[in-house]
Amino acid sequence: MQKMKSTPETDQSIIVTVDAVLFALREKKLHVLLTRRPNEPYAGQWALPGGYVHKQEDADSLAAALRVLRSKTGIAPPYLEQLYSFADGARDPRGWSVSLSYFALVDEAVLAKARLAASAPPFELVDVNAVPRLSFDHNRIVEAALKRLRDKSAYSTLPCYLLPEQFTFAQVHETYEHVMAVALDKSAFRRKLTEMDVLQECPGQRVGGAHRPAQLFRVKVDLVHRLRLLERPLAANLST
Amino acid sequence: MQKMKSTPETDQSIIVTVDAVLFALREKKLHVLLTRRPNEPYAGQWALPGGYVHKQEDADSLAAALRVLRSKTGIAPPYLEQLYSFADGARDPRGWSVSLSYFALVDEAVLAKARLAASAPPFELVDVNAVPRLSFDHNRIVEAALKRLRDKSAYSTLPCYLLPEQFTFAQVHETYEHVMAVALDKSAFRRKLTEMDVLQECPGQRVGGAHRPAQLFRVKVDLVHRLRLLERPLAANLST
Repeated sequence: MQKMKSTPETDQSIIVTVDAVLFALREKKLHVLLTRRPNEPYAGQWALPGGYVHKQEDADSLAAALRVLRSKTGIAPPYLEQLYSFADGARDPRGWSVSLSYFALVDEAVLAKARLAASAPPFELVDVNAVPRLSFDHNRIVEAALKRLRDKSAYSTLPCYLLPEQFTFAQVHETYEHVMAVALDKSAFRRKLTEMDVLQECPGQRVGGAHRPAQLFRVKVDLVHRLRLLERPLAANLST
Repeated sequence: MQKMKSTPETDQSIIVTVDAVLFALREKKLHVLLTRRPNEPYAGQWALPGGYVHKQEDADSLAAALRVLRSKTGIAPPYLEQLYSFADGARDPRGWSVSLSYFALVDEAVLAKARLAASAPPFELVDVNAVPRLSFDHNRIVEAALKRLRDKSAYSTLPCYLLPEQFTFAQVHETYEHVMAVALDKSAFRRKLTEMDVLQECPGQRVGGAHRPAQLFRVKVDLVHRLRLLERPLAANLST
């Protein structure tokens, strides 16, 4: 207690927020969720969903991120990971600030459903290749999240969180290709996925025409809500 | 400005510190640098070097980490990376707090030299396998740093930062083995290092007996102060 009193009061008044980069696939393209800021600074401008840590209410920064995402998007993403903390005196016009940044992946159908709710907060999905000028330093936060997503996708089941619970092999293949921004040989990719032992067939579940219906897969039950890391990358990617 | 005023004052008084896990090799074993806390809470107890962010003085969290390390260890580590932010209401008895945590690697000779300075601050190097009970949640911060170091060593030049500027092949081999806690076949490791193209021979520099003196190497000049990431891991490690 002694130390806290002897520290200049101004050094304690640092702004602490949580901000989240939420990725989803729309029309097979990677999108990021944006909101319009209701208040100054940057009122009416695009921004990531975010807000102050409420120290009376949030047990920790993860709880704060979940609360903010719930209030700004209506959903609780199945995969949420701390990305990085952006902390400096210039990123927020109100003063020295810390953004405890998270990134999340979600099936777009879940977002679409959340929008139908009566209390749906307004948000937009924007193509990651067409992100407008955002409030604060949120553009660099999106860039960092995109890099993390691509790096991590090369050696984990991360992209599966962008898919519905059940998906075809073609869907998981094109999702990895799209997220990693590389072409992945279909049969080599299928062989690696099999080696990884992360997917299971959904018995009797097939989609498509009666002629050659496609088998449906899902992430193995014990791997849902956590990542399976691979010893060797699925393929080199562009961002390292 | 408007929003800040409407936010409860208490939500703004979050403690923000930087804390650093500094690794060095002593007698070929990985050690972590600890200090004794001069003030309450935990006065006299072991802790990581750390301190409040000084918002008048620190441009950003990296500058804050460098300032704290300079004042608590007398050195500026050549490799310093943000590890994670530990942020919750329970980790500090003074209240809701954020630890912007960093990790660093340094040649032990540099630390030994810093200790000889007249103004040398007191610190100890402790074997990572014999870390005592630390203040706050610093034990979990050390664990997280150790995991990051091991994961990253498998596919980068990170462990080279533990070595002096010039080193033998035997030194770099045993450093990777020790950091990753695995046995690495010598000739396969030598082949991979050669493929990676990250080391250069120091011309005319050899150590050891006149009979079979060992060639000295150094990290290629353009790779100093940044990591070279590898497409494939050098070897699987234990921590993933």
